Parts: sequence; structure tokens; C-alpha cells
Amino acid sequence: MVERDLYAPSAATLAGDNADIYFRRSCDILAAEQLNPVVAMEVFARRRARVCGLREAQALLRQVLGQEAEVWSLDEGDWIEPREVALRIRAPYRQFGLYETALLGMLSSETGWATAAAECVAAADGVPIISFGARHTHPEVSARMEYAAIVGGCAGCATPQGAALAGIEATGTMPHALILCLGDTLEAAEAFDRHIDAKVERIALVDTFKDEAEESLRVAAALGEKLWGVRLDTPSERGRVTAELVAEVRVRLDQAGHSHVKIAVSGGLDAERIGYFRAAGAPVDAFGVGSAISAAAPIDFTADIKEVAGRPVAKRGRIPGLTENPRLKRVEL
Amino acid sequence: MVERDLYAPSAATLAGDNADIYFRRSCDILAAEQLNPVVAMEVFARRRARVCGLREAQALLRQVLGQEAEVWSLDEGDWIEPREVALRIRAPYRQFGLYETALLGMLSSETGWATAAAECVAAADGVPIISFGARHTHPEVSARMEYAAIVGGCAGCATPQGAALAGIEATGTMPHALILCLGDTLEAAEAFDRHIDAKVERIALVDTFKDEAEESLRVAAALGEKLWGVRLDTPSERGRVTAELVAEVRVRLDQAGHSHVKIAVSGGLDAERIGYFRAAGAPVDAFGVGSAISAAAPIDFTADIKEVAGRPVAKRGRIPGLTENPRLKRVEL
Amino acid sequence: MVERDLYAPSAATLAGDNADIYFRRSCDILAAEQLNPVVAMEVFARRRARVCGLREAQALLRQVLGQEAEVWSLDEGDWIEPREVALRIRAPYRQFGLYETALLGMLSSETGWATAAAECVAAADGVPIISFGARHTHPEVSARMEYAAIVGGCAGCATPQGAALAGIEATGTMPHALILCLGDTLEAAEAFDRHIDAKVERIALVDTFKDEAEESLRVAAALGEKLWGVRLDTPSERGRVTAELVAEVRVRLDQAGHSHVKIAVSGGLDAERIGYFRAAGAPVDAFGVGSAISAAAPIDFTADIKEVAGRPVAKRGRIPGLTENPRLKRVEL
Amino acid sequence: MVERDLYAPSAATLAGDNADIYFRRSCDILAAEQLNPVVAMEVFARRRARVCGLREAQALLRQVLGQEAEVWSLDEGDWIEPREVALRIRAPYRQFGLYETALLGMLSSETGWATAAAECVAAADGVPIISFGARHTHPEVSARMEYAAIVGGCAGCATPQGAALAGIEATGTMPHALILCLGDTLEAAEAFDRHIDAKVERIALVDTFKDEAEESLRVAAALGEKLWGVRLDTPSERGRVTAELVAEVRVRLDQAGHSHVKIAVSGGLDAERIGYFRAAGAPVDAFGVGSAISAAAPIDFTADIKEVAGRPVAKRGRIPGLTENPRLKRVEL
Amino acid sequence: MVERDLYAPSAATLAGDNADIYFRRSCDILAAEQLNPVVAMEVFARRRARVCGLREAQALLRQVLGQEAEVWSLDEGDWIEPREVALRIRAPYRQFGLYETALLGMLSSETGWATAAAECVAAADGVPIISFGARHTHPEVSARMEYAAIVGGCAGCATPQGAALAGIEATGTMPHALILCLGDTLEAAEAFDRHIDAKVERIALVDTFKDEAEESLRVAAALGEKLWGVRLDTPSERGRVTAELVAEVRVRLDQAGHSHVKIAVSGGLDAERIGYFRAAGAPVDAFGVGSAISAAAPIDFTADIKEVAGRPVAKRGRIPGLTENPRLKRVEL
Amino acid sequence: MVERDLYAPSAATLAGDNADIYFRRSCDILAAEQLNPVVAMEVFARRRARVCGLREAQALLRQVLGQEAEVWSLDEGDWIEPREVALRIRAPYRQFGLYETALLGMLSSETGWATAAAECVAAADGVPIISFGARHTHPEVSARMEYAAIVGGCAGCATPQGAALAGIEATGTMPHALILCLGDTLEAAEAFDRHIDAKVERIALVDTFKDEAEESLRVAAALGEKLWGVRLDTPSERGRVTAELVAEVRVRLDQAGHSHVKIAVSGGLDAERIGYFRAAGAPVDAFGVGSAISAAAPIDFTADIKEVAGRPVAKRGRIPGLTENPRLKRVEL
Repeated sequence: MVERDLYAPSAATLAGDNADIYFRRSCDILAAEQLNPVVAMEVFARRRARVCGLREAQALLRQVLGQEAEVWSLDEGDWIEPREVALRIRAPYRQFGLYETALLGMLSSETGWATAAAECVAAADGVPIISFGARHTHPEVSARMEYAAIVGGCAGCATPQGAALAGIEATGTMPHALILCLGDTLEAAEAFDRHIDAKVERIALVDTFKDEAEESLRVAAALGEKLWGVRLDTPSERGRVTAELVAEVRVRLDQAGHSHVKIAVSGGLDAERIGYFRAAGAPVDAFGVGSAISAAAPIDFTADIKEVAGRPVAKRGRIPGLTENPRLKRVEL
Repeated sequence: MVERDLYAPSAATLAGDNADIYFRRSCDILAAEQLNPVVAMEVFARRRARVCGLREAQALLRQVLGQEAEVWSLDEGDWIEPREVALRIRAPYRQFGLYETALLGMLSSETGWATAAAECVAAADGVPIISFGARHTHPEVSARMEYAAIVGGCAGCATPQGAALAGIEATGTMPHALILCLGDTLEAAEAFDRHIDAKVERIALVDTFKDEAEESLRVAAALGEKLWGVRLDTPSERGRVTAELVAEVRVRLDQAGHSHVKIAVSGGLDAERIGYFRAAGAPVDAFGVGSAISAAAPIDFTADIKEVAGRPVAKRGRIPGLTENPRLKRVEL
Repeated sequence: MVERDLYAPSAATLAGDNADIYFRRSCDILAAEQLNPVVAMEVFARRRARVCGLREAQALLRQVLGQEAEVWSLDEGDWIEPREVALRIRAPYRQFGLYETALLGMLSSETGWATAAAECVAAADGVPIISFGARHTHPEVSARMEYAAIVGGCAGCATPQGAALAGIEATGTMPHALILCLGDTLEAAEAFDRHIDAKVERIALVDTFKDEAEESLRVAAALGEKLWGVRLDTPSERGRVTAELVAEVRVRLDQAGHSHVKIAVSGGLDAERIGYFRAAGAPVDAFGVGSAISAAAPIDFTADIKEVAGRPVAKRGRIPGLTENPRLKRVEL
Repeated sequence: MVERDLYAPSAATLAGDNADIYFRRSCDILAAEQLNPVVAMEVFARRRARVCGLREAQALLRQVLGQEAEVWSLDEGDWIEPREVALRIRAPYRQFGLYETALLGMLSSETGWATAAAECVAAADGVPIISFGARHTHPEVSARMEYAAIVGGCAGCATPQGAALAGIEATGTMPHALILCLGDTLEAAEAFDRHIDAKVERIALVDTFKDEAEESLRVAAALGEKLWGVRLDTPSERGRVTAELVAEVRVRLDQAGHSHVKIAVSGGLDAERIGYFRAAGAPVDAFGVGSAISAAAPIDFTADIKEVAGRPVAKRGRIPGLTENPRLKRVEL
Repeated sequence: MVERDLYAPSAATLAGDNADIYFRRSCDILAAEQLNPVVAMEVFARRRARVCGLREAQALLRQVLGQEAEVWSLDEGDWIEPREVALRIRAPYRQFGLYETALLGMLSSETGWATAAAECVAAADGVPIISFGARHTHPEVSARMEYAAIVGGCAGCATPQGAALAGIEATGTMPHALILCLGDTLEAAEAFDRHIDAKVERIALVDTFKDEAEESLRVAAALGEKLWGVRLDTPSERGRVTAELVAEVRVRLDQAGHSHVKIAVSGGLDAERIGYFRAAGAPVDAFGVGSAISAAAPIDFTADIKEVAGRPVAKRGRIPGLTENPRLKRVEL
Repeated sequence: MVERDLYAPSAATLAGDNADIYFRRSCDILAAEQLNPVVAMEVFARRRARVCGLREAQALLRQVLGQEAEVWSLDEGDWIEPREVALRIRAPYRQFGLYETALLGMLSSETGWATAAAECVAAADGVPIISFGARHTHPEVSARMEYAAIVGGCAGCATPQGAALAGIEATGTMPHALILCLGDTLEAAEAFDRHIDAKVERIALVDTFKDEAEESLRVAAALGEKLWGVRLDTPSERGRVTAELVAEVRVRLDQAGHSHVKIAVSGGLDAERIGYFRAAGAPVDAFGVGSAISAAAPIDFTADIKEVAGRPVAKRGRIPGLTENPRLKRVEL
């Protein structure tokens, strides 16, 4: 792993290179006018959500704010209500005005992912979920997506960097690529077993060449007790994984004496599809979720200046002055 | 601006830290088995889209592939049909297997943004669109989002880093924050005019404290010919910007002799809302679009191995062997 | 006010000029045949409704029926069930056959208005409603519409004649016309205050030239304790009145020390929109309702002859003989 | 018939008793301030409609405006487009400000009826329509409703006063009441024939006691050539009139040699139901329409002051100054 | 009646002439291979249903199975759950493989009819239903349809053969044909009364020539106490039978002293329409149901081999081995 | 095959055992009254349909009508319009009144099947359809269903009796039962090839134990040129047959040199699903359709007496007298 403090802002962010340019101009204008009023800015979203990104936002604020500044915040992973203030900053405007774009961006993206993860986790009702949507996320933020998924309640994720950010180990089975390179599912499973550290669970992907039930029995017979489980990932062209398929594979494994082999399911899962498996009583031991988390839309956060130099203000449409929120906690800078 | 080749892969990407861990294990297994078959991998999406991310993907492949490898690709910004192959790689598997996650992630995210931008641009039917959704995107990828928006047809974007990636200058008006700090729209406009380089267009935001029509007339009277335009960004609590509001401001400006003053519109715009303004004949000179582009879901790309050591293969559900696509061009490595 | 007994039938009605002509012919035929059977006629509607118009109907019957006649009726303002008999007349047919058209017309129109008013009143849940839809009603019946609105539960109405009919005083704020003539909202409010009887509440209309919040504060500052309230009537081109606007004006008035100033809301209100304000907790002190009451469709009443000369009869599709209704009361003629 | 100029305003209207009280107060304030600016007021609706009520509005304006005033108007019965100016008044405000309520009320109510009538007439595609909804309209305006129905294209109406206003003769068949009083459809038809002026068409209502087809044949046999037609008005409890019923009665009449007997249809008809009969090719000779015209909602008209003392003005949301409409004609006062 | 054991299979069925030909070929192949494995076959449906056809299926199995065979079955008329095993056969395959088509066909058709009947019976909530849909069913199976309707809860049916199969007497009123031949409803009722065995109830069909209420009173007056009831069967061209019509006929009969006369209703009835009459409180004494039962789609049954020679088997998608169902009872062969 | 003239009425039909009992009573009453009027009866349906059953109906009429009778009919398989007369009988009523139930039943059932078949055939647009729904139809009418399917345009059917009725040979592949008994798809295919007449096409069912593509290649390799095709019948638990599966199997067969092997598809097909395969361009060579034809609801036919003893008559709701239909042809008795 490349060493780097993952929560710390990047150099580009600190330089304001990803700030909307009109914020830099505003700071320049105020400087030219020799103004730097103390303002209070409040940050909120418009829908119920599982807030995420506060940790990274605070890390940024710690680097740029002076001693006189105050920051009040909710906790990472809290559920927030519509228009509830999640973060409040009171400081001379020019200390942090440049960072509004970055602060909102962190919160919007990560809260979107964490909330989607929380919805899947709720639907799974106790069955663990592994987030593996990095492949549909730009690599420069895939680790944040995985971190947010864990904040949202997922049990695992797929990339080393995301896992590091969340303080856990990365999880994985085997890709179709390995099986295609080796030409047979059973051979791939046996090669995995020969060469990979015994601490890593053996999970065979069983839909590459043959029917899932047939392949599950072949692998289970070959690996015996060493096999942790099988993963069903039937493509849509073959009708996706269904609750009936899971039930049948379970029975066939049990009938052949492989009751210890678990069944993981993946492929186009979202909260609704997970709910379908649970409602049908399908004996799933783990779900793998990709786009339903990684492609979740950001949940927009808005920053409103509500006080300037101690006086309540607001633009039209907003209530002037601070919004009460007793759940906010003072952040140490 | 922090100096860095923005298309080049980051150190973490090159190190495989954001790769799904099972790809690293697959490479390790093949190495342990002393195998490194030449495979052909094809990358496609399942829906019509404006492809983006190929430039960054090629930059990564150039760093990792050997001389014997072949890469075939469409052009950045091409429209692709469902299941059309956009990228084909033929190389020893262990040279690039580790990067499947990153390659797909680049393409999925950037194609999602570019396609959404193209839909807004089509709806605007000639009226320029500025992308300014960086505030709802994680700062580590906001520049890629803006680059993709330009590839999708937008005329401008808001951050210096995004503009640099797209080879243009960043665009901006003024934020509510500046007006709130200065306490009056007119004062803010005049301060802007005093201190900001004359090359930058003067665009006043006119919804902060007073009615938009009233404020437009005040600013136009004060700045005269120097005023490029006004921006209407009425909040939802005041009913958003409507076609009637634009028409009225236009007439009132004209009646007061300010026909040269343009009108930019922003606030919750998407392709449908832009179409509403166009269908109503509202005299809009520029649209500012945020979340409709930046929150667009990634368009998932899939990578299939279709040849191993010269033999056509495929997993169940896919057609073995290469898929014809005469539009692909050989990429120089 | 022109003096006239408003409940009494007009000369045209008494002359049968607005009766369907076939009723006159029927009476002529029966006269030529020297017939005048005693019939019992029952009047009912097909849907649940708040009955109104009985008072006017009884006034008409008193003028035309002889001593031997009997009239049974519900009370003005009662809720009636589908097909419940609201009025029963037993008399020689030629005494009242000519007036079937007028009797049904009174009941249908007024019951339509009263029922619509009652639905708005229910939605307002305690907040008073002023009916001011006279402008969308023909002037020859606007007073009946306002009377019916009061029967339906409204707290006030806008025209002197309607108010007289309902036994109350007319209510009003100020029209846009006054403000446009005087050129400024504040000037209009001050002129109103100078010249209008101090018993009349001062209510300023605050959406003519400037933003509603700004104008509210100006008027409140100028009139102080004399200002009873402001009326928000934002046009659809400016997004109509929203719950957020009411809340913001409330807070801004309170922050400026004008807690005594009330807020009235008007503009396209109906039961659903009133319910939206109530559900959102918007601090509205009075609603002004126009077309939702005045444009309510009449609720059709039907008159069936159910007895002729003491024998139960009915046309096909109806049950011969009288319909029981213990709620009916004998009307003194 | 009670003699009276039906287009002239009533005494109450001239006295302003049905005006919104704030208009009287506005006039009083302006008078107290010794102001009486010449204003231009424009009147329009927001939807396409068949305008009606202009004749009555002009009659009112003729009585109240002075010589210096100007009135521009469309013609009674013109189709108007959304927001098209139908009436423009330029006069000292205090001459007509009191009558805004009445003017809008006339136009709104009558235009609603005329437009609904026009929609039924279009659906009938050449088959004449008789308006007979007076029974569901307050008697004080039923004549205006019938007048508007004729302006909208109806061929006849039911009350003497309405017919007089429209310059035609009232139309009628026979009511169920007559048949119930006489105890038999045939006897009623014969009594009608004995006593009513031979110029009045004999139309028997044939659904009171027996099946419509049976009754039609009985009446046709008895009255022979003197019978103009039969009216089908089957109640909903017997399934309403259907296209098949009309066709069957037609054939049975023809088979019995009564091809000259026409068929009129009534009962719950609206444009959609009329269209159903026409689409099914049912041989209907006349339709009787009630509530579909008389219960039509008023089409709201709005009056905007667009000029004060020669200067263009408007309230927020409207374009200041006059709106072009070359179709307007100058009205002689 | 032609004498024949109605439950016994026909000669064609026993000969396998209506078997899918591939079953005959399968038996031929197994014979050529000198194989005849004992198999267990389970039969189930995929939706909740009232099972019918088991009696006929068992009669067939009794004729073809040998002594060593076992049959387990639910009872005729039981409600079955989705995928619940309704019939299990364990026998040498060649003894019964040829009859899979016929066995499933019996169950599918008859269960479809019985289930539809049960739904109508439930909606009728105690009011008896007569099944008379034979006219819309092929005569070779109409008796089975009527038998299934009785199994589903109907109180009677219309054909002698169907009634015989169900062990009851056939039920009937009179057809329109009789009335048309005799030219008058009353004459038809009197002729019926003269010539038909007094044990058969007199039920007059009262919608052929005149209004139903009128005809009911004529027949009731003529037949007096001998009249069991009237049947209302109003055609759609006259608006079908409505709840109001039933109520009116009831009242008119009662007012004329014929309270003993019952009212039967027919014509396009299904569970929903029956529910409408019941919800409206219409005083119906019997319903006649045709297509809603006879045109019910078969409920598909599936037969799965789950054991071969004592070993659990299944095709892909099904669970190998027997499915538990403690409700199954051993059938005596 | 059991020998029998399949179009001739059964003994029970001739005896009237499946007639509604009121028809027998009507004949008895007329006989007792010594009446036997010549009547004309017309038979029609209410929707567009492909008429079937006329052949069987004519066979019945030939047996029961006398010389003086006339029968007019459309041709078997004609498309009929709503209410178009498909069959007209003029004869003494007692000669055929008893058979109304059977005649309508034949027409209703068979027309329902033929019409559904025609809809599937239209959707298949040239690809042949085999009807094999006998398993969901009662065996006593399954042959009629198959006959009607052929009349509706199907290319083949599954039972010997149905095929005989339609004048063709029965068609079949192999059932899952054979494969389960033999334990392997390939063995079953080889056994079939060994023992079944070489004229019968070899079609292997390939979804019983293994993936369809894998099994197709095994069977094709073993049988070579002798293999006519494979049948895909994937169960819903494995996602049904999809267009992609067909395409993949086609390519894999072609890549392995088995281009001559055809692909038949079955399993839950109806017109919509067939249209899906055709629209997707799936290379299907034959469709097998079951319930979509066999479970089609009967299309109700109605018989109206329109003449009695030369006089036009009709019950209420119908037009008295014959209905013109120049397409009718006189049937030889």
C-alpha cells in the first residue's frame, strides 16, 4: 500500500484547485476591501440520510481554521433529518470560504453512499453485505465509497485502500477471469487453495462454465471442509440468481453432506432484490452489492451563511440566524 | 494550481491499492502456477452512452503493458451502442489483470457524467450550459466530472482543476456568500467590478435580498455597459425560476434600456426543466447545471475475457470469441 | 345598499319566467282537463352534501302554496346523505308544479357552494376562511354564493350584499389596483390608515412591487401596532405562496419585534392546498378562498312525485311511495 | 314575462352592493387623496375559451364611464387564446374601479357555460343540442346560462326568460310529472295533443312506466303523423340510454311504419357521452344537455392595471404596459 | 340419459390417443431397453386453488396400475397451497407414464372451474348460486364443468349429465326461446305451469318483451302462490340488472302482496359483480353464473419425477426427492 | 387409435343429456300445446374472432334437422366481426331447440382456442408453432383443442387424436421423464435414436441436468447429422429461456460445426413472449405453445330467435328480424 494519511486533504484541495472559482474571487474581493467578517455557516441536507464525510471535512477544517474559530458537528454515521444542521462553522470568512465546494462535495458523495448502504443493510436484516462496487467508481474515490459503505453498515469491502480507510481487511472470492484463464472452475478452486494463505476463506464462484448446482457439488466434493462457501452470480442472460436457485443449491449441498458450505449471492442486487430473497426465505449467507451502493446519487448538502458579524442574516427563502440543534457537538480543532 | 499530469494514474492506482483484492490474488495464483496466458479482454456497456474515460484508461495501460500488447479503442466522446465494444486489450493477463477495477471505474463514472451532460446540452438546443456541480462531488474526482461534462458538450465549468483538464478557463459569477458578507447585492456587484480583472465577465446574482426584477434593474442602472448579465437562482421556497420570471425580467430590462444585459438561469435544472424553458420560449442566455450532471449514476462497464491463448472462450451467458467492431482503432502504446 | 328582501323570490321567478316551459304547459293541460291532483313530491341529491337553499325555497313555497298544503324540510346547513329526502311537498300539483325548476336550482347551486366551503373549512382545521370568489361569479347570484359559503362554515365574505344575506359585515384588505394607483405598497397602506374608519382592520397586501418579506417589514415598521396583518398573494409566476414563505415572513416579523402582525394567505387555495399549509405547520392566521368555493359545481337535486291522490306511484327506476326520513320537520306556511 | 331589459345591470350591481368591499374603500381613499388617475385595465383568461358576457359587461360600462373613456373588446362568442386580452378599459379609475367584481363575474360565469356548450356542440357534430340545465342553476342566473349556451352553439333552451335573452322561442317536451299525474304515457301524449297549440312539436317521453320500445310504438300508433318524436331519458337504475337502445327503437318504429318519428336523447349527457352515441352511429335526432353545461365551472378572468397616467406599470409577475391584440375593436360608449 | 360410468376413463383415454405422443415413444424406448424403473411422481399447482379432478384421476389410475403401486392423494375439493403436492404416484414408470397428459388435463381443467366457482360462492356469502355455463363449454366436457362447480360450492347446475355426475337434480327456469315462440311472457308462464311436473319450481323470466317490474307484477298476479320466483336477466343493451332494479322489483312485488315471490338474477355475473349486489344490499334470492365459472382458465398442474429406483432425483430447478405433505392420504387401488 | 368419426356428435349430445334442462322442458311444453313454429335462429359472438366449431355443429344439425330446414353458415376458420351472424338455422323449433346448449358450446370453446392460436401465429411471423397444451385440457376435449389450434394456424400438435382430427401427424420431442428415468440427457438421446423410427425427427431436450449450452454441444457431438435440433425449456427457477440464451446456443453450436442443428423453444410462451423473441432477433426455429392456446377463454356465442312463423321478432335489446350477412353460405343437409 502507498503510504498516506487517507483522511487528510490532498494538496489540490488545500490549494483550492477544485473550488468553484467564484469563491476564490470572493475572497480576493473581500481582501481588497480589507474585510474578513466572522460568519456562521450551517450545512444541511434536504432529505433523511445517514451522514458521512464529516471525518474528512473536520480534517480539512483543522488545517485551515485559526484558534478563534468554532466548529460544531454531528457524529459520522448519524441519521439526519431533513434540513437538520449537520455541521456549523463560525470563523472569519476568508479562513474557509474557499473550501465550501470541497466540504459540500465530501459530505454529498459520502452521505449518498452511506445512506444507500444502510438501506441495503436494513433489507438484508442481519445477513452480512459485502460492498464491491469499486469497479463502477472512479479509482480516485473508490476508497471513500467503500469507507462510506462500511459506515452505512456493510460488513466488508473489496479494495485494500478502502478497507484501510475503514480499518478492516479487504474481502474477496475469485473473479471469472481466473477461471477463464485456468479453463475450469474446479481447477481454479484447487489452485486458489494451493497458493493462497490459509487464513483467507475459500469461496468458489460456480457459474462460469456449468450449471451452478452441478458446479457447487463438484467443488464441495473436491475441497471438503476447506471450502467456506460458493458464490452464485448467474448473469441476466441466464436469468440472474433466484430464490429458488439458492434453495435448490442448499438442498443439493445438504443432500450430499456439505451442510457447512455457505452460499453467497451477487449480481444486480439492491435493497428491493435483497428484500425479495429475504421474503422468500432463501438461505443466503452473504450478499455482495455493487452499483446499488456505488452508483447511489450524492445527497446534496447546502451551506447557508446565517450570521455575519454577530447579526442574523439569510438570503431570501431562508430563516435568518442560527438553527437550533442540540445534537451538535463542539469539535476540537 | 498544484502541478501534476492529470491524466496519469495516481500512485495508489498503479500500486493496485484500489483494485478488488481478488485480482491481486488471481495474479499471485497464476504466478505460482507459472502461467501468464495471452488473453483478449473486451469492455462494453449495456446502454447507449457518450463514452468518456478512455483517455485516462489509455494513459494507465501505456504505463503497464509491454510491447507485445495490443489495445483497440473508440474515441473519447463517441456515442456507443448497447454492448458495443469500446475497448479491447490483448496482452499477457498478469500485465493488466490487476487494473480491471480501475479501468472500469474510470469509464463508468466519466461516461455517466458525459452522457448526462449530453442530454442537457441536447435539451438546451444551442443555449450554452455551464457545469457547476463540483460542490456535490467528492473533491478528489470533481475535476474528472467537469472534464466529462465538457466532453459531453458543456461550454464551461467552475473549478480551475476541471477547466485545466478540459483545456479551458474556469467560469464563475458570484456566490450568495459574497453578497451576504457585503450586505447588499449592488455593493457586491460594484466591489466585484472594482477588484476583479476586467477580462472576467460581470454577472450579478440577483435573488439574495430583494425581488429579482427589482434587483436586476438596480444593478443594470449602476454598472451600465460593464454588466454582462444577471443570474436568476430563485430558491424553491420562492418558487424557483420560472419561464414567466425570465420573460418579465427581460422586458423590464429592455424597457429600462438594458437590452445588452444577458440572463443566466440556475437552480435545480435538468434536461426536462431546460426543455421547459426552451419550449416556453423563455429568453435564457445561459444555463447553469449542477446535480443533473454531477449526480448522474455511473454507466456500468463490463470486461469480458473472450480469448485465452488464441482460443475463443466466454463465461456462460456470453458469446465466445471476439466481437466485431469496425469502429475500433488501434492505440499506440 | 339597495333595499330588498333578499330571501324573497324575484318577480321573474314568481311569474315562472325561468321555469322550464314544459312545466307551464303541463299545468295548462291539467287545467284544461280540469284536474289538480294532490301529489307528494320528494327532493333529494345523490351525494353527501351540506344542504343550502332551503331557506329561499321555503320563502317561495310560502308565497304560492295554499292552506291545505304540507311542507316538510331539513334545516339549512344540515349534512344530507345520498338520496336522503331534504324537502317534501304535498299539495295540489298546479299550486307548485311551475316552480320545480326554481326550487331545484336554488338547492343545487347553494348546496354546491356550501359543501365546497365546508370542505375547505374542514381542511383549515380552525383557521378562519374568508370567501372572496364574487369576482368569478355572476353578480346576480354572488350574494347567494357568499351566503352559502357562510352556511358552509366560512368566517367572512367580501361583498356587502352577500354579508347582509348572511347577517354579518363584509371583509376586505386592499386590492393590487390601489397600490398600482398610488405607486407604492407603503404609501397605499398609509393612505388606507389615514382615511378608513378605524374599526376596519389594516391588512397590507405585500406582493405588488417588492419581495414579500421585505415589504412586510417596511409596512410593519411604518404602521406599528395599527397593522393587523399582511396578506401574501404571490402570483404563480413568482411561485405562489409556499409554506416556507409564510414561515420565513413570520420569523422575520418576529425578529423585528412585530409578533402581533398576523399573516393572511390567498391565491389559488382549495381544500388540498389549505391542507398542505396545515400539514407543514405554516403559521397562517387566515385563508382567503375564491374559486374553490365559487366555482364549485352545483350538486344536482332531483324531484320525484311519489304519491298521486293518495296512491304510491313512481316512475321506473324509483321506489313508489314516500321515503321515510324521521329528520324532516314540518314547515310552517 | 316580466318586462325588463335583460342586458342592463341590476340596481344592486349599479350600486356596487355585489362589489368586493375593498374596491369601494379604494375609491374612497383615492377620493380622499383627491386622486383619480387615468388607468388602462386589461382583462384576460388563462385558458382557451369561448368568450361570453362581453355584451352585458359593455352595457354596464356604458352606464358608468364618461366621455373620455375608451373601451376595446372582442366580439361575444369569439374563441380566445390563453392570456389574450378580451377587454381593455382606459378611464379615470374611480369611474369603474367599483365594478371590477361584477365585470369579471359576468365574464367568468358566462364564458364557462358557453365554452362547455361549445364542447358538447362539437361532439354532437351537427345533431342539434337543447340546453335544459336551468333546474340545476340558481333561478336568478338561469337565463344567463341559457343565453350563454346559445352563444356556445346550442339550438334551443328551456325557459322563456333564457330564450328571450337569446332571441329565440323556448323548447320543451313533457315532464315525468305530467305522466305521473295522468297515470299513463299515452294518455299524457293525447292530452298534450288536445290542448297545446298545434305549432308546438309533440314529443312524447317514453320511459316512465313501460319499456321504451313498447311505449314508443304505442304513442306512435296513437298520434300518427302528429307525433314529432319520442324522448328517451332512461334512468341510471335502468342502465341509462344506450346506443343500442336508440338503434332498436329506431328499427322498431321503422318496422311499424313510423319512420317520420324522431328520437331525442337526454339523461346525464356530456361531450364524452355524446361522442359515444355519435361514434356508435346511433340514430339520434336531438340531444338534451343539462349539467354538462349548467354546472360548468366558471372560467376565471383576471383584470390587470397595465398603465397609470400614461406610464406602463404592472404588479410583480406581469409584464408592464399594454399587451398587443389586433383583434380588439373599439366599443362605442 | 345415456348410461355410462361418468368417472371412468373413456376408451380413447385408456388407449392413450389423447396422450402427448412423446410419452408413448418414451415407454417404447424404455421397453426396448428392457427398463421399467419404479419412479415416484408428484403433482402440484403453482397457485392456491380448490383442487378438483382427483376422483376421475384415481379412477384412471385404478384401471392401469398394478398391485405394487402406491397412490397418495388429497381429497376432492380441498384447498391447496402453491406447490403443495396434491397427488403422488409410485409405480413402475411404464404402468402410467402414458397417462401424464390425461391426469394433468383432468386436474387442470376441473380445478380451474372449481376454484372460480368457489370465488363466486364466497362473494355470494350465503346466497345460492346456480351454474349454467354449459352453453359456453364444449358438450363433451360440460358435465365435468358442472360437477366441478358443485365441488366448488354451487347449489345447482343446468344439465342432466352434469347433475348426475354431482349426484343432484338439474335446475332450470325458462329460456327466452319459449317466450318468443309463445309470444308473451305470461302465456309462457301459464303454459309452463299447465304442463310441467308440479315438483319443478315455477320461475318466470321477465325481461323479454316488457319492463321487468311490469312483467313481474303481471306474472305474480296470474300465478299467485304457485309462482316460486322471477328471473331478471336484463341484457346489456338495456343496462344489465342493477341493484336498484332488484330493490324496486322487490318493493313493487311486496306492495302488490307478492312477498313470497323470490328474485333470481343472471347475466354476466362474476365474483366482483356478485359482490356489488351483496354490498348494495340488493334482495337477491339466487344468482345464476355462466362464463365466470365455465370460462375460467385451467389451473396448470405439473408432474415431477422425484425418485427413480429409490434414489432422489429432479430436473434442474426442482428439489430432488419427495416433498413432505402430511395431508396426503393413501388411496386404495 | 380407437376408431370413431370424430366430428359426429356423441350419444350423450344426441340424447340431450348435456342440454340445459329448460330446453327439454320448453320442447315438452310446446309439444303439449301442439305447437312447433318454424323459427329462424341466428348465432353470433361479440368480439372479433377466428370462428371454429362450425364443422362439428353442422355435423350435429345434419343428424337432427328435417328436409324442410335451412342452415346458412360461414366457413370454418373465417375471421368474424363483432355481432356478425356466423350460423343461421330456420326449422321447426322442436327439431333443434334441444341442441342450443351443445351448438353454442362447440362454437364457444373451439373459437376461443383457434383465436388464441391465431394470435400466437401472428406474433411468430413465419416461425412454426407446435401446440402442446393437451396436458392442461381435459382429455375428453383435448383433441378438439388441438384441431382448433391447427385451424388457427399452428403447424403441429402433440396427441394422435388431435392430429387425426386435423388430418396431420402428431409431433413430439422427448419428455423430462425419459431423461430422468435414463439418468442422462445424452443417453436418452442415443436411446431415442436407437429405437424410434428414423422418420421421426431427433430433437433433444437439453435443460434437465446441465447447462443448456453445454448439453447442446454434447448431444450434437454424439448424434451428428442425425440430430434435427435441440429444445430449450429452461424452468422459471433458472430464469426461463431468454433471447440471449438462444443466441448463445446458436453461436456455440455454429462454432463447433453444428450449423444444421435447429433450436426449438418452449416454456410459458404466449403471443407477447413470442413477440419478444422475434423483436430481439433470436434465432428460434420453432416455438412450442401450451396454455396460451389451451387455456384461452371460450369466446361466447349467443343464439337469438329473430323470426317466428315468418314474422320478425326479438327480445328486448335486439333488433327484430334477420340480420343481413352476404358472407353466409347455404349448407347442404
